Amino acid sequence: MNTAPLLDATHNPTLQSWVASANDPATDFPIQNLPYGRFRRAGSDEPWRIGVAIGDWILDLARAAAAGGWSDEVRTALAPLAAGDLNAFMALGPALRRRVRAALSTALSAGSPRQNDLAGALLLQAQAEYDLPCRIGDYTDFYTGIHHATTVGSLFRPDNPLLPNYKWIPIGYHGRSSSIGVSGQTFQRPRGQVKAPDAERPEFVPCRRLDYELELGALVGSANALGEPVPMDAAEDHLFGVVLLNDWSARDIQAWEYQPLGPFLAKNFATTISPWVVTMDALAPFRAPFARPADDPQPLPYLDSAFNRDFGALDLRFEVLLQSAAMRERGEAPHRLMESNFRDAYWTLAQMLAHHTVGGCNLQPGDLLGSGTQSGPAPGEGGSLLELTLGGKQPLALPNGETRTFLEDGDTVILRGHCERTGARRIGFGDCAGSVLPARGVRP
Amino acid sequence: MNTAPLLDATHNPTLQSWVASANDPATDFPIQNLPYGRFRRAGSDEPWRIGVAIGDWILDLARAAAAGGWSDEVRTALAPLAAGDLNAFMALGPALRRRVRAALSTALSAGSPRQNDLAGALLLQAQAEYDLPCRIGDYTDFYTGIHHATTVGSLFRPDNPLLPNYKWIPIGYHGRSSSIGVSGQTFQRPRGQVKAPDAERPEFVPCRRLDYELELGALVGSANALGEPVPMDAAEDHLFGVVLLNDWSARDIQAWEYQPLGPFLAKNFATTISPWVVTMDALAPFRAPFARPADDPQPLPYLDSAFNRDFGALDLRFEVLLQSAAMRERGEAPHRLMESNFRDAYWTLAQMLAHHTVGGCNLQPGDLLGSGTQSGPAPGEGGSLLELTLGGKQPLALPNGETRTFLEDGDTVILRGHCERTGARRIGFGDCAGSVLPARGVRP
Repeated sequence: MNTAPLLDATHNPTLQSWVASANDPATDFPIQNLPYGRFRRAGSDEPWRIGVAIGDWILDLARAAAAGGWSDEVRTALAPLAAGDLNAFMALGPALRRRVRAALSTALSAGSPRQNDLAGALLLQAQAEYDLPCRIGDYTDFYTGIHHATTVGSLFRPDNPLLPNYKWIPIGYHGRSSSIGVSGQTFQRPRGQVKAPDAERPEFVPCRRLDYELELGALVGSANALGEPVPMDAAEDHLFGVVLLNDWSARDIQAWEYQPLGPFLAKNFATTISPWVVTMDALAPFRAPFARPADDPQPLPYLDSAFNRDFGALDLRFEVLLQSAAMRERGEAPHRLMESNFRDAYWTLAQMLAHHTVGGCNLQPGDLLGSGTQSGPAPGEGGSLLELTLGGKQPLALPNGETRTFLEDGDTVILRGHCERTGARRIGFGDCAGSVLPARGVRP
Repeated sequence: MNTAPLLDATHNPTLQSWVASANDPATDFPIQNLPYGRFRRAGSDEPWRIGVAIGDWILDLARAAAAGGWSDEVRTALAPLAAGDLNAFMALGPALRRRVRAALSTALSAGSPRQNDLAGALLLQAQAEYDLPCRIGDYTDFYTGIHHATTVGSLFRPDNPLLPNYKWIPIGYHGRSSSIGVSGQTFQRPRGQVKAPDAERPEFVPCRRLDYELELGALVGSANALGEPVPMDAAEDHLFGVVLLNDWSARDIQAWEYQPLGPFLAKNFATTISPWVVTMDALAPFRAPFARPADDPQPLPYLDSAFNRDFGALDLRFEVLLQSAAMRERGEAPHRLMESNFRDAYWTLAQMLAHHTVGGCNLQPGDLLGSGTQSGPAPGEGGSLLELTLGGKQPLALPNGETRTFLEDGDTVILRGHCERTGARRIGFGDCAGSVLPARGVRP
C-alpha cells in the first residue's frame, strides 16, 4: 500500500468511448469515470437497478449483464449489480471492483466489438430518476474542514474557536441515516426549539437560520468485524467511493440543543447526497500528498502511513450554487456562492476510516462517512452560509438583487465537484441538489 | 389517547398458563408478559425465528403458525413472525399487535384446547441462543436521567452541571447501530486517545476508565414519513416495546473527544440489549403519572398531552449486578451494585419520540431509542460506575474483597428490570449481560 495509487489503461486520458457524449470535454462522466448509481425510468414503477454513468447516458447493468460476453469472474461480480444491490458489490473489495472497471472500460471504448450488444442497455440520464445508490446502515459525520471549524468555532466560542483535541483527533459524530435522500430531495423547513441568548425561555418556531454544508461523503466498501480495527495501511482498501453531501443544518436549533451531546434535530431532518458514486479507482490520478504545517502536531502512529503522506489527500474542486424561487421562475441560472478544494481538509479519508475503527467499531458496506464542511482558507470560501455571511451579520447579494443571510423557502442549493489535473482526463460528480419547502402548515 | 392504558383479559393477574413454569411467582415471563425475541437452537445453524417467552420456554412462532387454528387476521399477522421478521410485525401498529397478544394469551392459558397443538412448538430457553430481536436501522440515545446528568455534569463541568437546555429539551444524540449486540455480547476493551488534564499531548492506550450505563431502550413500531412529525397524542401508538440497554462507555476517551460534537469512539465499540422485547401492551398495568416539580419549566405544548400527564411514566425497577472473573471462577453469584426506577426519568418515552420527529425526522420500525442512564436520586443509585465511585475517587468494595473504580477485564455486567404493582402480575425482562475482554493484543 506504500506504492503509488494504481493507474492503468482505464485512466488513459486519451481513451475515447463509442458513447459520443462521453467524449465531450465538459462532461462529468467520461469513460475514465464510470461511477455507479441506482436508477429507473422516470415516473415508472420499474425495479431500481444499478447503472454506470457514461456521457449523457446510463449503462443499465441489468441489461448489460444479460447481454453476455463477460468473463466468468466479471459476470459473477456483475450479478449483484444486475439485481440492483450495490452493497453486495461494494463488499467484494477493490481487486474485483477494478477488474469490473477494466471490463466496463474496454466494453465502452471506441471501437469495442461490444457496442452493438450494449447500445440497447443505455438509457438517457434525462429520462431517469434516482434512488440512494446503496443501503446506508450507519452514517458518521466528521469535521475535517479546519477553516470551517475555526470560523464556526469563533461564532459559537469566540474565545476558544478551535478546541485542543482538533489537531489530534479526526473529530466525528454519529448522524441520522433514515433521512438521507438523493439529489432532488425536498424537505420542509424544520420547526424546533430555539432560544435567543437574552430570552428567558425557548420558543417553538420554524427555523430562522437554515443553512447548507458542503461536504464530501465516502462510502465504505468491505466491512471490518467488530473488535478488528482497520490499520492505516489497509484503510484505502475499505473505501469504495465518494459522493457529494449536503448536511443541511438548522443553526438556531443547533445553538440551543447541541450541548453537551452534539447536534441532533439541527441535522436529522434531511441530508442530501449526489446519485453517482465516483469510485476510489476513478480518483487515482487526483491523489495528492498529505502534509501538516510544521508547527502542528503530527498524526499519532495509528493515523499515519507512508501512503497517506504521499497520496492520502485528494485534489477535488467543489463549488456551491444557489437558485432562488424567483431566479427559477425567471429562468435565471443558479448563482455560484463559493469554491473550495478537498486538499484543504485537515484529515484524509483513510484517517477518518482508521480512526472510526480503532476502538473496535465495525463498519459495513454502504456506511457513509461525511467529511465535514469543506471551506477554503479565504474569507469567501466558506462551505456554509453561516461562514459566508459571518453568522448572518453580512448578507450576500444575489445577481438579481435578492440577498441572503440564511436559506429562504423555495431556495435550491446545488453542490458540484470535479477533479482535473494535467495529464489526466477531467471527471465530475454531477449535481447534488436539494430544495427548501415552507415549514409544515405554512402555505407556499 | 387520553383514556387510561388499555387493560384487557391478557393482564388479568390470576390468569394461569398450561406452561407450568410461567405460573412461578418469580418468573420474568408469566402469561401476562409475552415478549418477543429472535432465537434458534443453541449451536445450530437453524434459521433465526421469532418466539415468545413463556416461563422457562420459548413458543416458536414458526411452529405455532404452522400448527394452525388461528383466525385469518391473526394468521396473517403471524406470517412475518413465522418468517423471523419482527420489523414487519412491528410496522403493523398497536391494534393488530394487541389482537395477536390476545390470541397468544388465550392459546397459552390453562385449559386451552390448543395445548396439544402447541406443546411441540416449545423450546427451553436454556437450549436457545439469541440474535438481535429486530433490524435496528438508526439508534438514538437520549439523556433523560436527570440525576445522572447532574452527577456526571458536575464531574465534567463542576461549575455548570446541568446545562440550561436540559429541562426544556429531551437531549439526545445519534448512536452507532452496527455495534449493538444482544445479551451475552463480549467485546475487547477499546483502545483510543486519552489525555490527562495536565499532559501536553494525548496518548494512545487501552481505555482505563471503562464503564457501563444502565438504560431502557424503546423500539419503534410503526414508521412516520419524513416531514410528518408524530404529535404527542399519537406517540404511544408508534412505540412497540422496550428492552434493557447497556451503553458501554470509555470515560477517558469520552473526556478528550466529546467537544464539540458529542461522544463518538467512547460509545461505539459495543452496546448490549436484552433479547426479549417487552411490549407496550404488557406494560399497560405499570403506567404512572408524569409530573414535574412545580419550580421546573413545564413541557412545551408539543411535548405535552393529557395522557402523558396521567400515564406517561413507567414504574419499572432496574438493578445492575457485577460478576468479576474471580467471582465466576469460584461460583460466586453476581453482586448487586444498585437499584433505580424508570419513574425518575425526566422525560417519558412518548416525549422522546415526539421530540425526535418534531423537526421532520422519520423513524422506522425497529429504530432504537435509548433512555440515557437511569440513576436514582440517592447517592448509591447511580446507573454507572462513574457515579457510584464519584468519578473513580471512591472505590466500590465487592463481597469477595475485590474493589472497583471502573470495569476490569473479565467483568460481566448484568442489567435486570421488572415491573410489579398491587393488583398486577409481576413481569420481568430477563438478563442483559455483557463481558469485557482484554484489549486487542493483550493476553487474558
